[in-house]
Amino acid sequence: MDSFADIIAAISTPPGKGGVSVIRLSGDGAFEIAEKVFTPRSKRRLTEYPARMLVYGDIKSRGEHIDDGLAVYFEKGSSFTGEDTVEFNCHGGVLVTRCVLEALIFAGARLAGKGEFTKRAFINGKLTLTSAEAIGNLLDAKSEEQMKLAGSEARKKLDLKIGQIKKSLTDILSSAYARIDYPDEDLGDFSDDELTERLVMTKSELDKLISTYRTGRAINEGVDTVICGKPNVGKSTLYNLLCGEDAAIVTDISGTTRDVLERSVSLGRVMLNLADTAGIRDSSDKIEAIGIERSRERTSRAELILALFDLSRPIDDEDMQILSLLDECHGKKVAVLNKSDAPCEKFDRGLVESKFDDIITVSAKEGDSDAVLALTEVTDRLFTDGEIRTGDDAIISSSRQYASLTSASESLSLAIDALRMGMCQDAASSDVERALGALSEVDGRAVSEDIVGEIFAKFCVGK
Amino acid sequence: MDSFADIIAAISTPPGKGGVSVIRLSGDGAFEIAEKVFTPRSKRRLTEYPARMLVYGDIKSRGEHIDDGLAVYFEKGSSFTGEDTVEFNCHGGVLVTRCVLEALIFAGARLAGKGEFTKRAFINGKLTLTSAEAIGNLLDAKSEEQMKLAGSEARKKLDLKIGQIKKSLTDILSSAYARIDYPDEDLGDFSDDELTERLVMTKSELDKLISTYRTGRAINEGVDTVICGKPNVGKSTLYNLLCGEDAAIVTDISGTTRDVLERSVSLGRVMLNLADTAGIRDSSDKIEAIGIERSRERTSRAELILALFDLSRPIDDEDMQILSLLDECHGKKVAVLNKSDAPCEKFDRGLVESKFDDIITVSAKEGDSDAVLALTEVTDRLFTDGEIRTGDDAIISSSRQYASLTSASESLSLAIDALRMGMCQDAASSDVERALGALSEVDGRAVSEDIVGEIFAKFCVGK
Repeated sequence: MDSFADIIAAISTPPGKGGVSVIRLSGDGAFEIAEKVFTPRSKRRLTEYPARMLVYGDIKSRGEHIDDGLAVYFEKGSSFTGEDTVEFNCHGGVLVTRCVLEALIFAGARLAGKGEFTKRAFINGKLTLTSAEAIGNLLDAKSEEQMKLAGSEARKKLDLKIGQIKKSLTDILSSAYARIDYPDEDLGDFSDDELTERLVMTKSELDKLISTYRTGRAINEGVDTVICGKPNVGKSTLYNLLCGEDAAIVTDISGTTRDVLERSVSLGRVMLNLADTAGIRDSSDKIEAIGIERSRERTSRAELILALFDLSRPIDDEDMQILSLLDECHGKKVAVLNKSDAPCEKFDRGLVESKFDDIITVSAKEGDSDAVLALTEVTDRLFTDGEIRTGDDAIISSSRQYASLTSASESLSLAIDALRMGMCQDAASSDVERALGALSEVDGRAVSEDIVGEIFAKFCVGK
Repeated sequence: MDSFADIIAAISTPPGKGGVSVIRLSGDGAFEIAEKVFTPRSKRRLTEYPARMLVYGDIKSRGEHIDDGLAVYFEKGSSFTGEDTVEFNCHGGVLVTRCVLEALIFAGARLAGKGEFTKRAFINGKLTLTSAEAIGNLLDAKSEEQMKLAGSEARKKLDLKIGQIKKSLTDILSSAYARIDYPDEDLGDFSDDELTERLVMTKSELDKLISTYRTGRAINEGVDTVICGKPNVGKSTLYNLLCGEDAAIVTDISGTTRDVLERSVSLGRVMLNLADTAGIRDSSDKIEAIGIERSRERTSRAELILALFDLSRPIDDEDMQILSLLDECHGKKVAVLNKSDAPCEKFDRGLVESKFDDIITVSAKEGDSDAVLALTEVTDRLFTDGEIRTGDDAIISSSRQYASLTSASESLSLAIDALRMGMCQDAASSDVERALGALSEVDGRAVSEDIVGEIFAKFCVGK
C-alpha cells in the first residue's frame, strides 16, 4: 500500500453527486498515465500546455468515451505532494467520477490509501507533520475557532515556534560539544551558568507552548460534557438550547429521555461534546434504569458536568443523590439553577454552592440566549486561556504534540537539575539531545513509521 | 432568483467532507469579487496571471484568513457559462467550504439557484437544452449505458440529428413561401409532389428518432418492474440476485417480506426500477395483508412483471390467484419458473405459457449468473431496439423530448394529408411551421420559460 514508486489516484472531492468532481493522480509517470486517458480537444498533448493550466478535453477508457472535462498538471516540486501530479475535473455524477478513476487505474495507477497524498507531501518535505495534522483537523472542523486553529496561518506559527525552540537547543548543544571535545581551548560559547540560564529560558518557552494545549484541546478535540440532574428538571431543554434545535424530545413526563443523546456543539471558543442523559432517580422501568446507569457512568468520566437544579422547589432526595454522585467526579462542575422565574425561598443555595466551580442561574426555555451566553462565559473561563488568540498565537491541539512537548520539557528539567548540581555539560547534553529528539517527533523530522501511519489513517481517501 | 445581472456563487462539488472542494463564481464582475476574497501568494493580482491558470494564494473574509487554496479565472466566452467565471479549490472540509462560499456572498455574489450555471450556459448559447438535460442525466447516471446516453458524444449526435430535421423543414418551408408569394414566377424549388415526398422522408427520419424513445427510456428512466408470486417461491432470492447483494431478508418462512422493497438495478442495457413485494395469498396477519394489497397495486401498474412459479410443485390455488391478477395488468409479463433443479411432472406449463410474453426457467440461488443472463436477454428484447447503439446513434430519452417530437410528427402528418388531398402548399405550410415550432422546443431555441425552469430545477445547486 505504501510504495512510493507507485502512481496513486483517488477521487478528492466528497463522495456523492455534485456539479463537478476532482480526481487526483500523483507519482513519477503520472503524466504518461494522464495522456493515455485524457486528450485535449486541440489534439495537442496535455504536457505541451504550460503547467497549472486547465485544459479542456475528452476522457476515455479502453477506447470508450467517458466524459469531457478539464485536466491540469503540476510539476514535481511545485505540486502539493512534491511529485508529478495531474488533476481532472469531470462531471460530478457518482458513476462518471468512478469511471474516470477506474480509467486511471486501468492505465496503470493504483488506488491511493487514506491521506496518502498528504503523506507523500510530508515525506517529500512539503509539509511538517504538525501541518499535516492540522489539514486533517481543518477538514473535520465544525467551528470557526477550530478552523482558525487548523488554518495555514496557525500552522505556520506553530512550525515557527517549534523551530525556534529547536534552534536554541541546537545552539546550546553545539556549544556544549565544543567544550567537551576541546576542553582546554575555551571553544564553547557558554559557561555553565550561561548554559543553565539559556536552558531555563528555552524550557519556559516550551512550557508556555505546552500550556496552550488546554485551549487547543478545548477548541479542537472538545470537552466531554454531561448534562445531569433529577428527572424533569429541564436537561433536554438545556440540551436543545445548546444544540440550537430540537434534538431531544422534551415533555413534562419524568423519564422522557432514556438513551444518552450526543452532539458536538461549539459554545464560544470551546467545543462541547455534549451528552444529554436520563434523569437520575430510582426507577422501576427497566429501560429507564439502564439509561440511569449510563448516565451515572458518563457523569463520572466527564470533563465538564452541567448539573441542573430546580430553583422553584426545595432541594430533595433526588437532588442530594446527584450531589453525592458529584463528589466522586473529577470534572469541572457547574451548577445550573433553572426556573429562576419562579424561585422558591426554601431552595438552599448553600447546599449547592460549595460543591461547584461555578454557578449560573437561568430560566431555560426555547430560544433563551441569556442562558447560552452565561454558559459560554463559564466554559471559556474554565477551559481556555483568554490571553491566547486562535490564529495569531502558536497553539498545540493534539495529544500527540502534547505528549512529545511534555517529554521534551521533562528532559530539559533533568538537564537543568544536572547542571545546577554541578555536573558537567557532558551529562546535561544527553538530556538536551533527548529533548531535541522529542521535539523532532512533533514536526515529524524524526517520528516513527507507526505514528505517521496512525495520523494519516484518520484522513479520507483523496486527501 | 433569476436575474442575469447578478453574480452567482455556489459549492460545485458534492456536499460533505472530502480532500478538496470547488466553489464556482460566475457573472459580470466576478473578477472584482474574486480579488476581494483571494490574494495570490505572489501578491500579484489573479487577473495578472493568464486565464485558466491555477494560482496558489490565500482566501480571506472580512480581513480574516479562512484558507489557502487555488483560484483560476475563465474569460467570458471561453467559460462553461459564457460569463466571466472564477473557480476556487479549497480544503474539502464542510465548514471551510461553507466559509469560502460565505466570503464570496459577503463580497457581493448571491447564492446560485439549482442548475443556474448550466442555465446560464444555455441562455448564453453555449449549450442546447437537450445537452443541458443530458448533463443533468449524466450526474444521475447509475449505469454505463445511462452514462453513454448522457455523454457528450451522444449529446452531439442528438443535436445534429434534430438540426438536420429542422434544416429539411426550413428548406421545404422557404420553397413553399416562395411559391405562395410569387405564384407566377415558379420560384419554389419543389412541385407539390416533390414537397409531399420530402415531407414524407423527413417525417420518416423524425419517426425513426421518436422510436428510439423506447430504448432511451428503458436505459435512462428505467422500467417499473415488479417481482410477484405466491409466498416462498423465491421472490426475494431473485430480487437479491438482481441487486447483486443481500438487499432483502430471505428465509424459508412464508410471509418474510412485508414492505415493498425498491431498488434501481441495471440489467444489460436496461435499468429496472425493481420492487420486491409480499407474496400474494390470503393472510390473517394484518401487517402482511397490507403488504399483499400493496403488492397487488404495484403489479397492476408495473411495466414489467416478473411472475415466479415453483416448478417443483403443481400449480395451486395461490398460483391461480396470481394468474388471474395478471389478466388485469397491462405490463409485459415474464414467467420465471424457479427450482428447475427439482422439476415436478405435474407442473402444468400449458396453464402458464399462454399468458406470458416470455418464459424463462431458472434455479434462483445466491450467485446464479445464468438466471441473471436469461433475464438480461429477455428485458433487452422486450424494452430496447437491438439496432440502436447507445453513444453512437441519436437517441431521445426524456418524455419532454418525446412529447415535442411526437407533436412535430403529427403536424407533418396533417401537412402530408393536406397536400395529398390536393390542398395548396399554403395550407400545408402552417402545419410544417407548427412542426418546426415543436422541434425548436426540443433543443430549446423556442421553449417556454416554465419548461426551462422545470428542467433546471432538477439540477443540484453548483451545477
